[in-house]
Amino acid sequence: MADSSRFEFEPTGRITITTDFGTADGYVGAMKGRILSLAPEAKVEDLAHDVEPQNLHQASAALCASVPHWPAGTTHLAVIDPGVGSTRAAVVVLAGAHVLVGPDNGLLEPVARRLGFSGAWRIMLTAATRPFLAEEAAPTFHGRDIFAPIAAAIACRRLDPEDVGDPVDLAALPLPPVLQAGGRTEGRVLYGDRFGNAVTNLREDDITAEHEATVQVHFGREGNAPLVRTYSDVPRGQTVALIGSDGYLEIAVRDGSACRELGIATGDPVRVQRMAP
Amino acid sequence: MADSSRFEFEPTGRITITTDFGTADGYVGAMKGRILSLAPEAKVEDLAHDVEPQNLHQASAALCASVPHWPAGTTHLAVIDPGVGSTRAAVVVLAGAHVLVGPDNGLLEPVARRLGFSGAWRIMLTAATRPFLAEEAAPTFHGRDIFAPIAAAIACRRLDPEDVGDPVDLAALPLPPVLQAGGRTEGRVLYGDRFGNAVTNLREDDITAEHEATVQVHFGREGNAPLVRTYSDVPRGQTVALIGSDGYLEIAVRDGSACRELGIATGDPVRVQRMAP
Amino acid sequence: MADSSRFEFEPTGRITITTDFGTADGYVGAMKGRILSLAPEAKVEDLAHDVEPQNLHQASAALCASVPHWPAGTTHLAVIDPGVGSTRAAVVVLAGAHVLVGPDNGLLEPVARRLGFSGAWRIMLTAATRPFLAEEAAPTFHGRDIFAPIAAAIACRRLDPEDVGDPVDLAALPLPPVLQAGGRTEGRVLYGDRFGNAVTNLREDDITAEHEATVQVHFGREGNAPLVRTYSDVPRGQTVALIGSDGYLEIAVRDGSACRELGIATGDPVRVQRMAP
Repeated sequence: MADSSRFEFEPTGRITITTDFGTADGYVGAMKGRILSLAPEAKVEDLAHDVEPQNLHQASAALCASVPHWPAGTTHLAVIDPGVGSTRAAVVVLAGAHVLVGPDNGLLEPVARRLGFSGAWRIMLTAATRPFLAEEAAPTFHGRDIFAPIAAAIACRRLDPEDVGDPVDLAALPLPPVLQAGGRTEGRVLYGDRFGNAVTNLREDDITAEHEATVQVHFGREGNAPLVRTYSDVPRGQTVALIGSDGYLEIAVRDGSACRELGIATGDPVRVQRMAP
Repeated sequence: MADSSRFEFEPTGRITITTDFGTADGYVGAMKGRILSLAPEAKVEDLAHDVEPQNLHQASAALCASVPHWPAGTTHLAVIDPGVGSTRAAVVVLAGAHVLVGPDNGLLEPVARRLGFSGAWRIMLTAATRPFLAEEAAPTFHGRDIFAPIAAAIACRRLDPEDVGDPVDLAALPLPPVLQAGGRTEGRVLYGDRFGNAVTNLREDDITAEHEATVQVHFGREGNAPLVRTYSDVPRGQTVALIGSDGYLEIAVRDGSACRELGIATGDPVRVQRMAP
Repeated sequence: MADSSRFEFEPTGRITITTDFGTADGYVGAMKGRILSLAPEAKVEDLAHDVEPQNLHQASAALCASVPHWPAGTTHLAVIDPGVGSTRAAVVVLAGAHVLVGPDNGLLEPVARRLGFSGAWRIMLTAATRPFLAEEAAPTFHGRDIFAPIAAAIACRRLDPEDVGDPVDLAALPLPPVLQAGGRTEGRVLYGDRFGNAVTNLREDDITAEHEATVQVHFGREGNAPLVRTYSDVPRGQTVALIGSDGYLEIAVRDGSACRELGIATGDPVRVQRMAP
């Protein structure tokens, strides 16, 4: 094994799992089983499995919100993989005192940057990885056949992160464009969170109001909402827009579900506009 | 540390987590990470995370149904917190051989009473709690910043329950009123369970029928159902009302979902009435 | 204890749990608590809890997809139990190096066959099982009162599988009939998976096309789909039918949800027919 002492990462055997597989089918169970078959001493913890299928933004937000709170030496396995079967790489990422394992489709980049990116390696079939990957001639379920065993091998000190393959740059998370024209700013709903708040790709900087009270947020066909500072500014049931804790504009219904009650869905356009005085 | 030998609670490092956060976002993952960062030896177990958002009754029922079956010495962390940011206290509760940690909004009271209430303390910023709470100047996510670290500290013998702050009384779970008038009894649907049964706040004692076969349960605009003793009294697909295992009146469809098929939702009125002979 | 050395199964204390209970109520939490109360050293892992209520086919598929990947010596507890209260037996099954515990309603048979069936025993109240079952005079929740304690006792070497009761044959999973007439083949949707694919009971062998391109799959009132080899054969949003990795015909929408977008539900008829040339 290569000397990895130059990195902050000291594996503790602990592995978190984040997927969009839900827990109705056997996908997550197969990954856990594979990890524990390879490394019975691994400590496997569920992080999030009910991410909207293929929603990289929601999954990335979940990783950013949780991974930094885990102990140093944790390995985080994340499989949200709309491009499975395409040419996207499978990667291992060193970030701060953590390792991330998953597809190189932008999912891991925001949390890696937040933790302090130290390097990424493409998972290749080499002498080092073969003992963990060799069972399948043709892997059909990458979560179970590639990501889980590589995460287990790293978490349990059977494989060093930088030995999985060639160094690579990490792909950025693709965000829908923010359009600015004629005093309007237009973005998109990235995902709806558990409480039905519709999180957009518009950041505080994108909203160029001189005074917040004069700004209106439009969404869907008819809906609109005033931009407020906190929920406590409005009565129960009112629709509002506000900047969430991660710095993104959210549309919310106080004590309700904006997504369900207003029919807002992932991908819907959102427009911020100054109101006529 | 104070001497807690007068209590039955001997912490074992085991912590259960109950929330309404779901597992699509990073909230639960952040709490688990914070616990394990503070106490790597903690054994964290998911109890329930898909409680209907802010539904204290469903969460309280989940705690009552499960907590009594856990081993003595378990710490139970529960965060269903519609009043976050209000003046509700954060509390630690000693009950039987268990500790409960969560908001003092009624959530913990029914299970504490069932286990045998021994005392409750308000979590305050003191010399004893500061080492676990001091990271945030202003906690924004109480589950992660207050409840998780206090539960971890108690479960792993770094903090005694009675040292978290001043003793308090425990708030009762607010139940909708049961109205009795003119031979009718009216209550509310508290929540729908996994199988679509609509659980109400009406107890067996509230239903003053001389003979059950003459009682009819009304709900929504049009619906009604006979009160029966068990499912096996009726054919598949029939709507019935019965007293569930916790002693509350439930509306159910045999082998179906009453909530979905009959359009019953949390908060709907339910009326019990003697049928005309 | 009987000598179980003639079997491959050497219990490791690890237990997986599969249910249709979801994680909104306390059912799963009660089972975990009961296991850990009886055997604090047990290592409990969630396999799948969001199986469609009472859908034996989805649960059986989840077990088949995951159980074979677990380490030898694991005990798998599975409770999907539409016939609770009926005369169906509660069973312990030895299969390969694994033990399965659950209702004898067909749920366990496919995975037992895949692992290599070695024997099944009906759980009875005997001198051997009484210490684990005796608490309840009349068990009301079999998952908590029978299956969980028996699984814990076996996983943690307090009870041998063949000592739970009399040997039994294992019930087969009841599949809807496949009808063949006039060049048509008709089956049923068994369940919708996480990605909204509608999995049917039709196997590759049931589809007797001379050439796949000439076959059409009909479902619901109006829908139909060409039978293709892989998703990559069609553009995003197109409805297709294909043979899934388990060998069953599935109806899918590429990058979409067939169940939601096409309104397909469990139990719907599916017809395969040669197209007019």
